[in-house]
Amino acid sequence: MPRLHSSRLLPLAAALLVCAAPAFGANPSTTIAAADIQAATQLRDAALHDDSAFQFIEGLTTEVGERLAGGDNDLKAREWVIAKFKALGFDKVWTEPVTYPKWVRRSEHGEILAPFAQPLALTALGYSAATPAGGLTAEVVGFDSFDALKAADPASVRGKIVFVGARMHAFRDGHDYGIGSKVRTQGPALASHMGAAAFLLRSAGTDNNRLPHTGVTNFAGATPIPAAAVSAPDADQIERMLKSGQPLSIRLALDCGIEGQYTGANVIAELRGAKKPDEHFVMGGHLDSWDPGTGAIDDAAGIGIAVGAAQAIAALPHRPARSIRVVAFANEESGLFGGKAYAAAHKAEIAKAVLGSESDAGADRIWKITASVKPQARAAVAQIAEVLKPLGVEYAADEPGSGGSDLSAVHAVGMAALSLHQDATRYFDWHHTANDTLDKIDPEQLRQNVAVYAVSAYLAAQANGDFGSKPGAWANEHE
Amino acid sequence: MPRLHSSRLLPLAAALLVCAAPAFGANPSTTIAAADIQAATQLRDAALHDDSAFQFIEGLTTEVGERLAGGDNDLKAREWVIAKFKALGFDKVWTEPVTYPKWVRRSEHGEILAPFAQPLALTALGYSAATPAGGLTAEVVGFDSFDALKAADPASVRGKIVFVGARMHAFRDGHDYGIGSKVRTQGPALASHMGAAAFLLRSAGTDNNRLPHTGVTNFAGATPIPAAAVSAPDADQIERMLKSGQPLSIRLALDCGIEGQYTGANVIAELRGAKKPDEHFVMGGHLDSWDPGTGAIDDAAGIGIAVGAAQAIAALPHRPARSIRVVAFANEESGLFGGKAYAAAHKAEIAKAVLGSESDAGADRIWKITASVKPQARAAVAQIAEVLKPLGVEYAADEPGSGGSDLSAVHAVGMAALSLHQDATRYFDWHHTANDTLDKIDPEQLRQNVAVYAVSAYLAAQANGDFGSKPGAWANEHE
Repeated sequence: MPRLHSSRLLPLAAALLVCAAPAFGANPSTTIAAADIQAATQLRDAALHDDSAFQFIEGLTTEVGERLAGGDNDLKAREWVIAKFKALGFDKVWTEPVTYPKWVRRSEHGEILAPFAQPLALTALGYSAATPAGGLTAEVVGFDSFDALKAADPASVRGKIVFVGARMHAFRDGHDYGIGSKVRTQGPALASHMGAAAFLLRSAGTDNNRLPHTGVTNFAGATPIPAAAVSAPDADQIERMLKSGQPLSIRLALDCGIEGQYTGANVIAELRGAKKPDEHFVMGGHLDSWDPGTGAIDDAAGIGIAVGAAQAIAALPHRPARSIRVVAFANEESGLFGGKAYAAAHKAEIAKAVLGSESDAGADRIWKITASVKPQARAAVAQIAEVLKPLGVEYAADEPGSGGSDLSAVHAVGMAALSLHQDATRYFDWHHTANDTLDKIDPEQLRQNVAVYAVSAYLAAQANGDFGSKPGAWANEHE
Repeated sequence: MPRLHSSRLLPLAAALLVCAAPAFGANPSTTIAAADIQAATQLRDAALHDDSAFQFIEGLTTEVGERLAGGDNDLKAREWVIAKFKALGFDKVWTEPVTYPKWVRRSEHGEILAPFAQPLALTALGYSAATPAGGLTAEVVGFDSFDALKAADPASVRGKIVFVGARMHAFRDGHDYGIGSKVRTQGPALASHMGAAAFLLRSAGTDNNRLPHTGVTNFAGATPIPAAAVSAPDADQIERMLKSGQPLSIRLALDCGIEGQYTGANVIAELRGAKKPDEHFVMGGHLDSWDPGTGAIDDAAGIGIAVGAAQAIAALPHRPARSIRVVAFANEESGLFGGKAYAAAHKAEIAKAVLGSESDAGADRIWKITASVKPQARAAVAQIAEVLKPLGVEYAADEPGSGGSDLSAVHAVGMAALSLHQDATRYFDWHHTANDTLDKIDPEQLRQNVAVYAVSAYLAAQANGDFGSKPGAWANEHE
């Protein structure tokens, strides 16, 4: 699951970037040498022939498959990635522990009982409570948005199953995920506060397949209630029946819940820098996935892209000045646990993380680069962007870059960050569903991603000067 | 499920049409009056505003849902359609019994055990045998086509699970269904003859969704074995593992089978003709559907289109000369039982069925009209085609028309037939899957279908002369 910028915030964020400028006033400018630009251009063209990213994704999704955080495949996936990183010849491979509540999905079932009996294709949300043994049957009250639920009289909701039917449409920047993820993450808590018995949403997705989109919800202090997503065609059925004006009753049987704590790990690999090995560029993705699919686009792709980029750099005649770090983060899906643990573990040496960018929106073509860097490093980012331009990447110099979901916590403690924006038009058709499988990866577009990451990593690792990483540097940038 | 012409047979069929010509030599020519052409043109344009077809499909899929032949919803669907036909004001509504073996699906589960454990999205085929209690585990042997299985040494297959991975691609005329349906209908019997323990196929579909395509298989004297379809992404997984060269073992647990005989019914409605009420044009679709979806494209659409066309004709100031008959056929899916029963019941008066056409390939735009009529009626078909031309329909005068799946048996006993070919490009993405739901119906394209059927029915009902229906008239036309 990526965290996407709310486009409403961009002007504010841009203004803050400008306001923050004086703080960096004393810093020297960062530049990239012409020879490095030339080497990066060759690296870019070589990376367009990469097969290692696809092989990584193919291997992980075929040999391990689904990777629910804390589930049966969690350890298996870590062992697979550790072995793979070692086999690929990284100079150093290590793990760092990540602890979180272990949520398990045992079974799930739902059906409309009246006015017209129909089975429902649904899936429990992460952290959903179980229904009582034997299931839960209640009347449904429907809303077309989060705000409509919020505005409702709690008496109309009490004891009922709340259904929110908000729709998402497909866009290159995926901004409608803001609608769907708000309903999913905040809707169940709101419904619980209002006294609802359970919560259903139209899947946060842009497809019309009979495959529900799971994802985490956040009860944030509210009493957990059963919460699930129905597929778009099932949401249509619910809405048609609600429109008929006849009472709609649904039976839910969700067997799921939290089973104590689990300790997994971030898996980290590094190519050792030739001159400043203690400084690094960091990239990666998250190793966990939701359980209905095999987590190809979300997010074997993210790690695969970083692996491909690192392999392309490793194939150069000389190692870059700084180290290149690849992180396979633990449990992004239920609350950025891996990213937060990594940030906590590396906060003290954050200035050594010169720049970072993580991929968590599939593997379709990267179309935009944005950055949160010190003003004196803007020119260097522009140099990087110039090498990326022939790949169809545009540089939006006035927009910040959070570094991606798993690196957002690292960015929040001070790391300068790039965001390399993938085309998300198709992403939310498959995101968090059984359809997240290898066939959704387009090898040609994947190679473009590898080239973009390879160039960005290499040039950041070679740059003369830093990008502004220091404790708390971006504290006021984002919401 | 439509039965599609094999394009290989078309030249032969065309030749037979020509050879058959002398048999009709003594018959007078059939013509359509200019006033009727003008009325049909107005009817066509009015039918493009039809909403009754969509309302029919919406009602049936929402208020009844899946309609597995002989299943829980079989009687409910019949009662719904009888009530709907009566409410729509048909002059006569009646049923005719149809008896067939009742096959039931209780549960189904499959998983890869080795070399890499993965769950499988699969669905049992109609008439599949059950696995033993506790399931069946066996090694898998893979083939890329029906012919490759046929050519295999039975010793290599004995006791194993046969997997056939033949692929279909999307075409407007849907011809690749010939590949997929052959593997599905004939593969399990062949595997059983060769001593296989069970049979799996790559779904007969053109999508890459994690939703398997069910459909009937035909053991034709072979001992029934467990037989199921896996979704395309699951077929990819199986093929990747087979390619690795390591032994692949799968566990199947299918609880399904035949539970005696069931008697359902064809539901028939008629608008009484003004001058020759005992003669009629017949159109329709099949009322049963496969059980994973709600049977919107397959085949609520077929009945809905006929209903819409009949409603448009009923709205004219005068009834046409001949009657207009709409049939909702029972159990097409497991072997054309409704169509065969109808043919048997009406064989004696087949000459009264002046012409017929049934819709069973969804509701996307009709792009071609073909006909099996006597040579002296070709000019009348050309007149009908001329009225359809502005709707984007081309007339392929040298290709036969079987009348569609449910009417193929009626055609076989002598009814002249039109085939109104729907664009099947999207159809096999959803066919026989949980994705066969109302949202896959494009209301605009559906209206074009209604207009095509309304024009065809009206002009056939008004024509001066017949189209060649008589006992055994087309016996040599098709394979």
